[in-house]
Amino acid sequence: MIKEAVILAAGIGNRLKEKTKNMPKGFLEFDGIPIVEWSIQKLLGIGIEKIIIGTGHCHSMYDNLIKKYPLIKTVYNGAYKETGSMETLCVCAKEITSDFLLLESDLIYDNIGLSVLVNDVHRDVVLASGETNSGDEVYLQTYFSDKERVLQDLSKDKTKISCKHEELVGITKLSQKVLSLVCNYEKENKNTIFKLDYEQAMVFVSKSIPIYVHKIENYLWGEIDDICHLEMAKTFIFPKIIESENTRKIRREILLNPGPATTTDAIKYAQVCPDICPREKEFGEVMKWICNELTSLVASTGEYTTVLFGGSGTAADEVMISSCIPKNGHILIVDNGSYGARLAKIASIYKLNLTIFKSSTCDPIDINELERKFKTNEYTHLGIVYHETTTGLLNPLNIICPLAKKYNIVTIVDAVSAYAGIPMDLEKLGIDFMASASNKNIQSIAGVCFIICRKVELEKTKVFSMRNYYLNLYDQYNYFEKNSQTRFTPPVQILYALRQAILETKTETIEKRYQRYIECWKILVNALKKLNLKMVVKEENQSHLITAIYNPNNPKFSFEILYDFAHERSFTIYPGKIDNTFRIANIGDIKPREMERFVEILEKYLNSIK
Amino acid sequence: MIKEAVILAAGIGNRLKEKTKNMPKGFLEFDGIPIVEWSIQKLLGIGIEKIIIGTGHCHSMYDNLIKKYPLIKTVYNGAYKETGSMETLCVCAKEITSDFLLLESDLIYDNIGLSVLVNDVHRDVVLASGETNSGDEVYLQTYFSDKERVLQDLSKDKTKISCKHEELVGITKLSQKVLSLVCNYEKENKNTIFKLDYEQAMVFVSKSIPIYVHKIENYLWGEIDDICHLEMAKTFIFPKIIESENTRKIRREILLNPGPATTTDAIKYAQVCPDICPREKEFGEVMKWICNELTSLVASTGEYTTVLFGGSGTAADEVMISSCIPKNGHILIVDNGSYGARLAKIASIYKLNLTIFKSSTCDPIDINELERKFKTNEYTHLGIVYHETTTGLLNPLNIICPLAKKYNIVTIVDAVSAYAGIPMDLEKLGIDFMASASNKNIQSIAGVCFIICRKVELEKTKVFSMRNYYLNLYDQYNYFEKNSQTRFTPPVQILYALRQAILETKTETIEKRYQRYIECWKILVNALKKLNLKMVVKEENQSHLITAIYNPNNPKFSFEILYDFAHERSFTIYPGKIDNTFRIANIGDIKPREMERFVEILEKYLNSIK
Repeated sequence: MIKEAVILAAGIGNRLKEKTKNMPKGFLEFDGIPIVEWSIQKLLGIGIEKIIIGTGHCHSMYDNLIKKYPLIKTVYNGAYKETGSMETLCVCAKEITSDFLLLESDLIYDNIGLSVLVNDVHRDVVLASGETNSGDEVYLQTYFSDKERVLQDLSKDKTKISCKHEELVGITKLSQKVLSLVCNYEKENKNTIFKLDYEQAMVFVSKSIPIYVHKIENYLWGEIDDICHLEMAKTFIFPKIIESENTRKIRREILLNPGPATTTDAIKYAQVCPDICPREKEFGEVMKWICNELTSLVASTGEYTTVLFGGSGTAADEVMISSCIPKNGHILIVDNGSYGARLAKIASIYKLNLTIFKSSTCDPIDINELERKFKTNEYTHLGIVYHETTTGLLNPLNIICPLAKKYNIVTIVDAVSAYAGIPMDLEKLGIDFMASASNKNIQSIAGVCFIICRKVELEKTKVFSMRNYYLNLYDQYNYFEKNSQTRFTPPVQILYALRQAILETKTETIEKRYQRYIECWKILVNALKKLNLKMVVKEENQSHLITAIYNPNNPKFSFEILYDFAHERSFTIYPGKIDNTFRIANIGDIKPREMERFVEILEKYLNSIK
Repeated sequence: MIKEAVILAAGIGNRLKEKTKNMPKGFLEFDGIPIVEWSIQKLLGIGIEKIIIGTGHCHSMYDNLIKKYPLIKTVYNGAYKETGSMETLCVCAKEITSDFLLLESDLIYDNIGLSVLVNDVHRDVVLASGETNSGDEVYLQTYFSDKERVLQDLSKDKTKISCKHEELVGITKLSQKVLSLVCNYEKENKNTIFKLDYEQAMVFVSKSIPIYVHKIENYLWGEIDDICHLEMAKTFIFPKIIESENTRKIRREILLNPGPATTTDAIKYAQVCPDICPREKEFGEVMKWICNELTSLVASTGEYTTVLFGGSGTAADEVMISSCIPKNGHILIVDNGSYGARLAKIASIYKLNLTIFKSSTCDPIDINELERKFKTNEYTHLGIVYHETTTGLLNPLNIICPLAKKYNIVTIVDAVSAYAGIPMDLEKLGIDFMASASNKNIQSIAGVCFIICRKVELEKTKVFSMRNYYLNLYDQYNYFEKNSQTRFTPPVQILYALRQAILETKTETIEKRYQRYIECWKILVNALKKLNLKMVVKEENQSHLITAIYNPNNPKFSFEILYDFAHERSFTIYPGKIDNTFRIANIGDIKPREMERFVEILEKYLNSIK
């Protein structure tokens, strides 16, 4: 799996004259977006975790990109005026820890080229195209080894290359081994070869370790070295690239149900990967990374740890309820909606010592009443739902859990529909165990659930006798700690998608995701007010992630017809859990303009029954 | 979701003269494969369940294809000489039950065109390309409605069309509604319009219901009407199509571990689909179809039913053990390997009344001894593993289960690694409950498991008190029967992949899959003999799906080094479960030639340590 990429972006771009006097070539814009951002987004889209940009000319512009894309590391080549791209690669090398993609900064390209390289069986591969007639071609000389092309030489000078049918694109996959060899070549030759290019170094290294050439005859790409290239690229190449990438786009359906949520295409495609046995070390590393990152989003990895399971959010709830309470424990479960009731149902199936604290599904919990329960000293554990999607009620865990901790009560929280949507800090909230799932606000697809556990509390469960097998928390945790494997075959592809979702979450940040959700929610709520539709829960008690709405007082209203009307227009809405209501969620990869489109649809339907 | 396709293949193909005198155009070969088969494979690859071929000229050749592709239905247009393609579509119409893809039989095309149509938001869409200069262009006249192209007219006569930049490809997506309208048009005009084409009928219908035009400027396709087209297609277009499709291929890794197994690219891509709420009716239909088909592979759907869960094979085992045995039951579990031991472990966690029948992991079970146990009348249930991947031992369930039934014992079988790899008939075998998972011989990806249940035994479990929630069999079954939804969010994308795997299994058939597995196994075993490697289990007691092999008697041998050596060459092998052994499985989408490559690698490694 390729997780790192390097963009060589130190060059001055002399030939573009005025255009690049005060900015690097990577900031030339196509459709209002700098080409380096197009490249960053394409790299993110294939699961790159870290992009190292080798900078020089106007380097601060690249440094500023880090705010928007935290996965970027910039490395400055101070001698960029006197050195070639090989020196820039050398300064980047210290940040590179694995096989990586190497790109030039002045390229526009079809993203299929990245996945072609990633899927190439060889570790060192140069991407090539057929003839472009661009006017600045780098021709490749290759020889065949076992039916595969190997790099032998390259030149802009046609007379030096016998075959002019293969052109260097400027996108390459390299191993650590070849990286160290090209860097050595630079060290040994920097004083004798002026402005050494990385391409020349590869030609040298390919003599000892074959660097393969993967040619796509009709590959869509362009390098922008002068005004003429720029014009060509804008007029002819860029539209073709967009068209080609569009053929691989998936029909966008907006899910306004409370999960599975709308996902990006990158997450959908992250499932498509070479077959792998999940007991392989490489996959163990992926799972460890996922666990660490899921923890880091809400807690410190020193105090907390994440345990993965194949299953739904309810499976995660059952893991907690069946694994975290000893025989002599007594759990108090707050039931103010379907999910609280579900926690209680699970506890009762396992015949736990259980007391249910009933509360309204629409109004806030009476904290004083709850504290009186805590004070009795009868309860060892509290079970509570953070965000009740039944009505969209948000329980004030920031008050309840610290209060429980004051009375030494272990807190078990169903945060399935809150995690990664609402900024939270488990330590501050006083949460000991927290469950969520892959298909909610983390915005991935369904099939994986996880428990984030306070380590010290998790360790205590070691001696509790097992109530089940597949869903046992400590056994799953302990086996993974020892073996970097799950006990049972995990849903491999869903974990790759979850990894992609984490990368996207880190790029967006939970704070900004929450703001986006709120923005969508406001669009909805303003429309509801305008349309005279009443909400079930008061605004201040809502999660702002899902809204329960009373059916309008109009006998012509039919949820089913509204559902179909919206569905034909690519929106999925959700029935209510309580009578005479329906629900609209605003989680997932949805944009405010899409929520605007939805409220127009809602208005149109309501007008039609006036 | 598009599940049906129609190929219009009645035409005589006059212009190809001698070439199509005795065969339809669809049987012209590219790379040794008839173009209609290229098309069928592409349609299968995007999840089409049923391909209706409208035949005429030399129709029996199409009829013969059904043996190879059971998803084909042929419908004969007896008047093919006197009628046009619209009449052929009319005779096919009675077989069409939903929105469908409509293709001409003489096309070669890039498969991306199919997914573009499937992903188009509109239900009626004609695929168009830019100018091809093919010499037989059908130009489209379109108008814009809300920024989208709508079909207005078409003609081969340039003078009739104002714009010559859009050409009809011959691939279309149509709704049932438009189908019935074009068929009506045919009925009303068959006597006045000679040889009416479906294209002309669409032009007429598009006046009332817009038929959209999706244009891909650089789409790769060719229609073959004469010798000149054929030459063009072979020389220029076909290689480009192959190259384009190859850019989307996934690196092939051959997994010789006992699942997750190697999958096809079509299964990997089946996960990439528009977001859908799994509570939607459409998804309920998909799950019902999956359940029915999984049952049908091994039993009658009258007597048996399948219940789906999100989880691994072990989860399915736990479902059975925790759900199928009443309080006063007593289960006898055969333990002759890790999976038998696991069944027993689960039973002990749930504190069931359990007796373990220990048997060798290498030698067959002593049936007489087992029958003596049955005879005691102490046991209500038998738990046994069909195929113990621990050593590759196949337990003779054909003897054991009918024997158990003779003593009125309910049979619970872990068939995780046998189902869909070994032909089986649950009724004949006397199996009441059987568990398997998506990532074994059904050749899909991990994340879904299922129990195939004898309905009358399943109904008995209704009154058993629940021992858990997520994994309870009857609750899951009952909810799904009533609602066509699972109780909890299922792994949607994994179910789509499973659907694709079922389509592929039905095309291959389990019998032929088993033969392919055996062929691979023989290649392995012959090599082992040649290399003087000993197997743990006698050939006649093996499953022939996985082989446990003793390490060679050579101190230089290292499993880890062999593992790495094979892994660098894209093969994943598996450690042994018993000391001093390793394992090679031969399940999944592996070809005999790939097993040949593996045994060469094995030999090469062993030679290197000689």
